[in-house]
Amino acid sequence: MFSLPRPPLSRQLARTVGRLGLRPPVLPSAISRFLPNIVEPLGKVPVVRRWLSQLFINYYGYAAAPRPLALTLGSDYTTWRTLTDRTYSGRHLPPATRQQQAKWPAEADVVALFRRDREIKSTDTSVMFMFFAQWFTDSFLRTSRDDYRRNTSNHEIDLCQIYGLTEDKTSLLRSGSGGQLKHQYIDGKQFPVFLFERRQPGASLVVKSEFQGLHDEEFLIGTILDGVSEKHKDTVFAVGLEHGNSTIGQTMMNVVFFREHNRIAGVLEAEYPEWDDARLFDTTRNVMIVLTLKLVVEQYIKHIGPFDFPIEAVPFLADGELWNRSNWSAVEFNLLYRWHQLVPDVIGSGPDRLEPGEFRNNNPLVLDRGVEGLMALCSRERAGKIGLGNTPSFLVDGSRPGYPSIEERTVALMRKARLRSYNEYREAFGLRRLSGFDQLTSDPQLRRRIEKLYTHIDDLEWYVGIFAEDYPDYLMMGELLTTMVAHDAFTQALTNPLLARNIFNEATFSPAGLKIIGETHSLGQIVARNATPSDEVVVEFRC
Amino acid sequence: MFSLPRPPLSRQLARTVGRLGLRPPVLPSAISRFLPNIVEPLGKVPVVRRWLSQLFINYYGYAAAPRPLALTLGSDYTTWRTLTDRTYSGRHLPPATRQQQAKWPAEADVVALFRRDREIKSTDTSVMFMFFAQWFTDSFLRTSRDDYRRNTSNHEIDLCQIYGLTEDKTSLLRSGSGGQLKHQYIDGKQFPVFLFERRQPGASLVVKSEFQGLHDEEFLIGTILDGVSEKHKDTVFAVGLEHGNSTIGQTMMNVVFFREHNRIAGVLEAEYPEWDDARLFDTTRNVMIVLTLKLVVEQYIKHIGPFDFPIEAVPFLADGELWNRSNWSAVEFNLLYRWHQLVPDVIGSGPDRLEPGEFRNNNPLVLDRGVEGLMALCSRERAGKIGLGNTPSFLVDGSRPGYPSIEERTVALMRKARLRSYNEYREAFGLRRLSGFDQLTSDPQLRRRIEKLYTHIDDLEWYVGIFAEDYPDYLMMGELLTTMVAHDAFTQALTNPLLARNIFNEATFSPAGLKIIGETHSLGQIVARNATPSDEVVVEFRC
Repeated sequence: MFSLPRPPLSRQLARTVGRLGLRPPVLPSAISRFLPNIVEPLGKVPVVRRWLSQLFINYYGYAAAPRPLALTLGSDYTTWRTLTDRTYSGRHLPPATRQQQAKWPAEADVVALFRRDREIKSTDTSVMFMFFAQWFTDSFLRTSRDDYRRNTSNHEIDLCQIYGLTEDKTSLLRSGSGGQLKHQYIDGKQFPVFLFERRQPGASLVVKSEFQGLHDEEFLIGTILDGVSEKHKDTVFAVGLEHGNSTIGQTMMNVVFFREHNRIAGVLEAEYPEWDDARLFDTTRNVMIVLTLKLVVEQYIKHIGPFDFPIEAVPFLADGELWNRSNWSAVEFNLLYRWHQLVPDVIGSGPDRLEPGEFRNNNPLVLDRGVEGLMALCSRERAGKIGLGNTPSFLVDGSRPGYPSIEERTVALMRKARLRSYNEYREAFGLRRLSGFDQLTSDPQLRRRIEKLYTHIDDLEWYVGIFAEDYPDYLMMGELLTTMVAHDAFTQALTNPLLARNIFNEATFSPAGLKIIGETHSLGQIVARNATPSDEVVVEFRC
Repeated sequence: MFSLPRPPLSRQLARTVGRLGLRPPVLPSAISRFLPNIVEPLGKVPVVRRWLSQLFINYYGYAAAPRPLALTLGSDYTTWRTLTDRTYSGRHLPPATRQQQAKWPAEADVVALFRRDREIKSTDTSVMFMFFAQWFTDSFLRTSRDDYRRNTSNHEIDLCQIYGLTEDKTSLLRSGSGGQLKHQYIDGKQFPVFLFERRQPGASLVVKSEFQGLHDEEFLIGTILDGVSEKHKDTVFAVGLEHGNSTIGQTMMNVVFFREHNRIAGVLEAEYPEWDDARLFDTTRNVMIVLTLKLVVEQYIKHIGPFDFPIEAVPFLADGELWNRSNWSAVEFNLLYRWHQLVPDVIGSGPDRLEPGEFRNNNPLVLDRGVEGLMALCSRERAGKIGLGNTPSFLVDGSRPGYPSIEERTVALMRKARLRSYNEYREAFGLRRLSGFDQLTSDPQLRRRIEKLYTHIDDLEWYVGIFAEDYPDYLMMGELLTTMVAHDAFTQALTNPLLARNIFNEATFSPAGLKIIGETHSLGQIVARNATPSDEVVVEFRC
């Protein structure tokens, strides 16, 4: 009979440590400086790497109660709809009380806490990391434009960035042969095809008839592309999501994953000539989604964790865990992931120098400098440090008249969602409550400013608190933010059905696909596979 | 911090036994006759009852690989769609090979195996059980009429029989005050309101405007009610599902649950006068769904199990289990639940006697005799025995010209789903393969007939095999059928979000609601609560 193997001792131990909630102390700097010398060789021993990966993942996996969440933004009490209708965003804690709400400072004062005076650089995080984070999270944290309580996500990491949100949209993006996505060549390199056409030179843009229904055109043309250069509009690529051309990062990442899809489809076609377009496409997609998950764990989360320990996407890890429950993103996950402070004032220097206006809506730049060249540039440039007082002004004060700024919209969503206090979230995620603002931050100026707004630490709003927390320079963010992002990310990424024991096998990916999965550990590898010998490939989240 | 409690030792033991797959032997009749004398007093000891319930549930929960299923009827290989689009029915095993398909006998010969010559009565199962089974399964095993590969179920036990399949439909059924469903009184008793009206006497039926959109009217009037008496049509109730008035059992069960909903809404309104209609309705619905789940486990599955051991719906049982994965019904679950042989040739005797034509589409009978009277009649009448050669002819040969019979449609669906062999399913569910037809059945005539059709036991089709299996008279069906129905039922019912640790509490049900849940263990209690003192209440699945 089918029998589930006993979890190995190491996993049981990892689970136990996670449940006990033993907190790592802040390390003295002598130790934290020395630790990388141990971590790196340790990470090279497969057994140790795997065990510590399990430990790390379960530590956060068991940090809070497992799903199902009792509430969504759809109702303040539990109904059958809140338990089954995933178009409503979940919430980790019930709404704030009226007494709590009465004490909240003005929204503008909260927004002002985020405004950057002078850019503070991160310790070792690259702008490439920032672009990856944006590209990655835009695929599953998708607040509905019509109703803040709802989302348009299926709550899975499914690479909808290149495949679209529904099968109908996917079919518009497919070439219909060889499992390929529709493509064009520009200067000998493969790109998605352009979304728009002009029926005659100088006429206004229209979506090509083959892409009717791919996006909400009114929103795309009337809002996203409002005021954007004609040169960019002419080079907007047909990709899965409406925002898929909004920054050079979105475009770079989409192009790289798009090329890798078509490359792998070609590998499978050569290997399995009897397969039709559908089988080649579907199997390639299975492989691509798992590649994404691997990079997220083994490169992206690795960088978020301390000392860049080489954490591994252990196969079937979630199978034995009690946090393996249907995905359902919480509004807190959506909000805490707004790491706007990563955005630098400028990328590069000299003739390479890029101003924020050039990061955005600038496909001509990607075509001009090439994906590889831009990725190398972004890999060498440090991102901003995550925390209060470091969001660039165009995100705090807005860049277009008549549109609220990104940070204004974020604070407004937090308020509409009526979130509980910072200390209540600490408690829910297994951390001790803070008893004073001095435990939050050692910056006296910031402390005074926050204290003036909130008076008592128990009244501090969660969204302010997670970005106010001090953290040592071997981390990228404070304790509660780290805990919450890791909990939500691990329990949503590793529960992907493609990683389940019954599914993660040759039947699902083909032997050739499984080999590609086994060999891939970094975004750089994927870029290199699709580059020409003359391209310089440098893709790093750490710099 | 939130910490998951260690599973108690008893649960760990139960899980281990389930995983080991130790099979219970067929008991010598001296022992099986004696066992009820032990089981009954044992079941009265709460600790023992609870532990044996866990053991029983986990034994079947771990009988097969946990979800996600690798395949659906949508594709013969694993795609992202097969892993995420639950409108396609799942499948436990991959499709049969071409070689297997080539050996299948004619469909008509398979159907003929089911035809009843002379009714064989079950040991101790009532017709009431049969009607409950039909009413219960029609709510979640819902093959799409347009595409056999798909279903119209949300895969949850959600009492859509009285609430409808979507929130829009639910709102049509609600009265809009006091959390009540729309109701009328007939001879002093509460009923749902009628679905149809005639604009003038003798005119043809139309759906009342308040119920526009509740059902597919063309299907309801053109197919379900085709050829049905005008008297029945005039008394069709507005309930959640199109088939909700198709048998006296559907009507009785719907009326009972409908009355209980309105009764509980009234209890909550008295208890919480500050609650609005929505909160009363939603909280009542939460309570009602859990009552359904309790009856399913504590009364219905108890009767299916051996010796009517008082199995208990242990709170939070699924929380710690590895089979607690998103629901997704398999086509095998849909097919194996077609216990058409339960249908007797006749119910009752003398003036009470009901012919099959009277069981169906006969709301006037329910109004005339009353729900309580009919339930008492059905509780005293034995159902047929589950197995080959015992399906009444109207289900084998059809009751209406031009429509295929129920059994013909079932065999056709099995064939379209291309199911693997009986022995392969035995293996997948942890049972040893049979090596000859003599191990399947001791009935020499049936054995010869099956052997003639299939030649070798390994070629025996699954749907025939599960109904051909011999079983001792303390069971209701054979070993593989018991194992599969129990595995699918437990792992879909007990994973209901309302039973999860974070949800099953006073906040979700209210203290008054939780008290009702705690006090309810049988359908008879629910009927009695809504009956008048003059009603005789006898509701039994065993007779």
